[in-house]
Amino acid sequence: MTKQKFKIHFQPENIEATAADGELLLDVIRAAGIALNAACGGGGTCGTCKVMITQGEVASQPGDQLSPADYERGYRLACRSRIAGDITVEIPAASRLETAVVNREIELMEATAGATNAVATGWGFKPPLTKCCLELPPASLKDNVSDLSRLLRSLRRRCHLRNISVDYDILESLPQAIRQKGGWVTVTTLVKAVKSQTERPKPTVIRVEAGNACDRHFAVAFDIGTTTVAGQLLDLSRGEVLAESLAYNGQISYGADVISRIAVAQKTGGRKKLKQAVIDTLNQIIAELLTSTGVKTADIGHLTLAGNTTMTHLLLGLDPEYIRLAPYTPVASFIPPVKAAALGINLGPHVYAFTFPSVASYVGGDIVAGVIGCGLHQRPELTLYIDIGTNGEIVIGNADWMVTTACSAGPAFEGGGITHGMIAGRGAIQGFEIDPTSGEPKVETIGGEEPAGICGSGLINIVTVLLEAGIIGQNGCFNTEGKNPRLRTGEHGPEYVIVPGHESASGEDIVITEADIDNLIRAKAAMYAGYQTLSQNVGVSLADIERVIIAGAFGSHIDIERAVTLGLLPDIPRERFVFVGNGSLTGARLTSFSTDLLNDARKVATMMTNIELSERVDFMDNYVAALFLPHTNAAEFPSVTRKLAPSAS
Amino acid sequence: MTKQKFKIHFQPENIEATAADGELLLDVIRAAGIALNAACGGGGTCGTCKVMITQGEVASQPGDQLSPADYERGYRLACRSRIAGDITVEIPAASRLETAVVNREIELMEATAGATNAVATGWGFKPPLTKCCLELPPASLKDNVSDLSRLLRSLRRRCHLRNISVDYDILESLPQAIRQKGGWVTVTTLVKAVKSQTERPKPTVIRVEAGNACDRHFAVAFDIGTTTVAGQLLDLSRGEVLAESLAYNGQISYGADVISRIAVAQKTGGRKKLKQAVIDTLNQIIAELLTSTGVKTADIGHLTLAGNTTMTHLLLGLDPEYIRLAPYTPVASFIPPVKAAALGINLGPHVYAFTFPSVASYVGGDIVAGVIGCGLHQRPELTLYIDIGTNGEIVIGNADWMVTTACSAGPAFEGGGITHGMIAGRGAIQGFEIDPTSGEPKVETIGGEEPAGICGSGLINIVTVLLEAGIIGQNGCFNTEGKNPRLRTGEHGPEYVIVPGHESASGEDIVITEADIDNLIRAKAAMYAGYQTLSQNVGVSLADIERVIIAGAFGSHIDIERAVTLGLLPDIPRERFVFVGNGSLTGARLTSFSTDLLNDARKVATMMTNIELSERVDFMDNYVAALFLPHTNAAEFPSVTRKLAPSAS
Repeated sequence: MTKQKFKIHFQPENIEATAADGELLLDVIRAAGIALNAACGGGGTCGTCKVMITQGEVASQPGDQLSPADYERGYRLACRSRIAGDITVEIPAASRLETAVVNREIELMEATAGATNAVATGWGFKPPLTKCCLELPPASLKDNVSDLSRLLRSLRRRCHLRNISVDYDILESLPQAIRQKGGWVTVTTLVKAVKSQTERPKPTVIRVEAGNACDRHFAVAFDIGTTTVAGQLLDLSRGEVLAESLAYNGQISYGADVISRIAVAQKTGGRKKLKQAVIDTLNQIIAELLTSTGVKTADIGHLTLAGNTTMTHLLLGLDPEYIRLAPYTPVASFIPPVKAAALGINLGPHVYAFTFPSVASYVGGDIVAGVIGCGLHQRPELTLYIDIGTNGEIVIGNADWMVTTACSAGPAFEGGGITHGMIAGRGAIQGFEIDPTSGEPKVETIGGEEPAGICGSGLINIVTVLLEAGIIGQNGCFNTEGKNPRLRTGEHGPEYVIVPGHESASGEDIVITEADIDNLIRAKAAMYAGYQTLSQNVGVSLADIERVIIAGAFGSHIDIERAVTLGLLPDIPRERFVFVGNGSLTGARLTSFSTDLLNDARKVATMMTNIELSERVDFMDNYVAALFLPHTNAAEFPSVTRKLAPSAS
Repeated sequence: MTKQKFKIHFQPENIEATAADGELLLDVIRAAGIALNAACGGGGTCGTCKVMITQGEVASQPGDQLSPADYERGYRLACRSRIAGDITVEIPAASRLETAVVNREIELMEATAGATNAVATGWGFKPPLTKCCLELPPASLKDNVSDLSRLLRSLRRRCHLRNISVDYDILESLPQAIRQKGGWVTVTTLVKAVKSQTERPKPTVIRVEAGNACDRHFAVAFDIGTTTVAGQLLDLSRGEVLAESLAYNGQISYGADVISRIAVAQKTGGRKKLKQAVIDTLNQIIAELLTSTGVKTADIGHLTLAGNTTMTHLLLGLDPEYIRLAPYTPVASFIPPVKAAALGINLGPHVYAFTFPSVASYVGGDIVAGVIGCGLHQRPELTLYIDIGTNGEIVIGNADWMVTTACSAGPAFEGGGITHGMIAGRGAIQGFEIDPTSGEPKVETIGGEEPAGICGSGLINIVTVLLEAGIIGQNGCFNTEGKNPRLRTGEHGPEYVIVPGHESASGEDIVITEADIDNLIRAKAAMYAGYQTLSQNVGVSLADIERVIIAGAFGSHIDIERAVTLGLLPDIPRERFVFVGNGSLTGARLTSFSTDLLNDARKVATMMTNIELSERVDFMDNYVAALFLPHTNAAEFPSVTRKLAPSAS
């Protein structure tokens, strides 16, 4: 005997569903594809799954988490209510999971950047990967369609899916999955990004599990940097980050930058080795994420990867040769989702790996992810997005248009090419001040350890302090007139002793030379010429920039005032600057949470116009003009010019 | 210096293309996706690629294959004309490859069936797999999109493709393919079947070769029977069958019919063994097709497979268990195309295997292919489609509606369950007559060898002749009154000696017993009750059937008049019967030639309403009524009744 069926109407969605007598309202709501916030997992203890019954009635009781007044007004906890007749249910905004998830992301960004306008908003929590639990009606001689047809019919009826396609691999175990729990199955569907707004989303069934497995619903998002790989384990049923892990990219042993990696890839077996190296890193991070949370591999259903164009090519085993050679063409900018297991990633056979589309050979998916993550593409403000590194990537634009470029700044920002440079690890000098009375320098190191060298952000601090103290001039040369006891002539000309040997880790003096300063000036000049050339190309002035978003690990550690003083950042009101940390990882996470944002990725990559600077005369002119502290054109840096000018009072 | 570009306008397609000065018109037409009949391959010797230049002029000369009068009227041979300015070209119907291909198929069917209305017509020659040769413009700093974007852009511009998707696997060798021949590439695109008429076709790029490889463009089509597998090698650039090959299905050693194969599949490792057995057979046939033609494996780009539901399941490694158990549900009726290499088929990594959709557990893709092949779905005539075998499949309908069923006739038609039965191999008695004067029986065997046994069509002939001679009665019992010397009482009751032992291969008498006749009567009764129940269900009379299409190897060897006499076929005018031979293979071939017909397959499978007969009372009633020769209801068989009635004159 089958149970009586009732009609359930959802508002404001205007969705019709049917449910059996006694079915849990929370399950019915989930099956209808409405993401309800049930923070305690349906245990009746959090009170977040409050809905209003506007017509009909459910079998429910008032409880600790629902006031008698609310109960009186028609509110019920979905996890404590069972179907007992036809009803109309209204889902209040506050009870929707998407409200909770978006608010959480805003809070997170506020904690990181001190600003709320640096994270994508206005998106619904609707992951491209969804799970739907449903009961298939039994087959009979009058209705003996195939198992798959029966499944698809129920998905259309119960989960309101349309235009469904099917991954061939689900067929292998489908008959067992359907029969193991009396027709109850959990179906995982994946929506791949659509190419245009007119294209209907096409959910693909990628997994069918017996019984109710809706709660085991996870994803992994990665930012694959040339140096560092960062991964997050995401709970897709709650929109939460469960764990984060970080590791050096295993490709480092094949070269520090993308150009040397591409050179290795050209050798016999090189591509294979580089691919394996980064896959090993991803697998190591996945293992850590799983171990620390107890989540099982099989329950991860989605994988999102943001990386620069070369990293994406090497990960997929594509030939990067022409990235390096003019006119710099990647193999592909838009990569269709590919099975993770086929790449060698230790995830289930049903998992697809999504890579972010790239714009050009040197503006990759990491930048597109960063733009999406900070919501640049959603807002009217004219925004400058910067990712500072050996390759600096720059975006200017807003919701209507975007231009982008990359410039080769050289390794100075990562401590490369500097006499006592080092990466931003333990013992690296980051803070630097000169005691105004004693004239003695004071350093701070990462981890508080004995000074071992100077990292990129330390270099910026040192050069700014020396400039402001008049120890170096605006041309980057030491002012030898002042007879500073720390100034001396070294093997390669004038140098300043930052840390004497008896205080350093190695026992040797840590110095900064004119050549080091020159390297930094060339690096910052390349970045500045980049912003300038790009903005001139679209006819805007840097002074018009309403918001500067600084992404990346290096960016997070620089002092804005000092970076402006050196001419690395434009001289505009400081409150316009926002740090977003690992913007690519934020983008990778948010596109795992929101199909709308996933669809934005293609749109954003397409709307970004790339401008190749390397052989342009205007870029070279701007570059040469920027080889000064802060700039040869003082009008570009009014506040710095005022500050550095000899007091006229 | 780039060559001057001209505008080419095609009529009646109304397609715009551009072509370089000096380019061959034949190449330009092909790149525009118009299938021109160039029977000699562009050698100027056949004159079939005649087109009319209605505006502008090409660089061309009148030749042997083009009369001065035609030249005067504006006709040119596309293979002898080069672009020299903007032109408008009209492609006459007679020059279209599709006209040639469709005519060829009609001739072929006429030769087989003696009827032209038994093959699908009205389709354009437009294979789902197409090749397009084009030159990609070189990249520059101002236009350095990815290799893939450049390719897709050219496909849209030059080959007029829209909504293109890309198989991930092409990316591996894309940069080399593009650069190896200076930007000239041949792109293979595949259109998978669309689900509805509103769905736009989505060509998928599955292969990119360097240079012009348009001529190497082949496909393989298979009919996978439970007993026999038939394959054809098709030339997709000409729409021709290059070779055909036949082999026993390697699964035969695991059981003769689908039920015993399903039983084997339930044992440990059984599914794997059965899959491998049929894959081995396919590989054997592919190897023969390639060896006999010199075609290379890599140049086969398409694979179409028609098989019954069990054969399709076993080929794909799907669990057939519930096909056998009531209520008889297959795992899936519509199988998405799957990579042939993943199944173990020896074809290139880019080849997708298309399987025909099935209707139900016992009405499979072979029947859908057969219906498509004979064009049943295109015509208004009420048609009965029959595939006679151990499982008999029956379709009644026309372009507007179709019903279908399967009935278990038992193995009698294949010589099974008959005292001296055998398959239709060498030595099998097929022909049987009784000399009207001497009363001596006369047999004919397959291959003219010594009689070894009786095959299915022989059994029909024997029983009919004995019935007409009055040796057996309409109840199937021997008429023992007449004292026929060949009639005797054997171990199991009355029997008739067909061949005495001294004339048989084994030295033993070959006889037919009442039990044998009873088996045949039950088999033909099941088939007839099938047609009857099905037609009654849709409210039509068998007498209204305008055309009976008999498909399958067994069907091709039966004598219509005799089959009607026994009550195996309905008693309607004999000219309505048509034999189509291996209709499934025809369907598999035609869907390789025509995307329209491929799309029809899903439509046809969906529109066919399956009726399960096995447990229906009306079927049982009809079956019992048919346990007579020809039928207990004489009105069903008026012409036979007249013939068998004692002469009243």
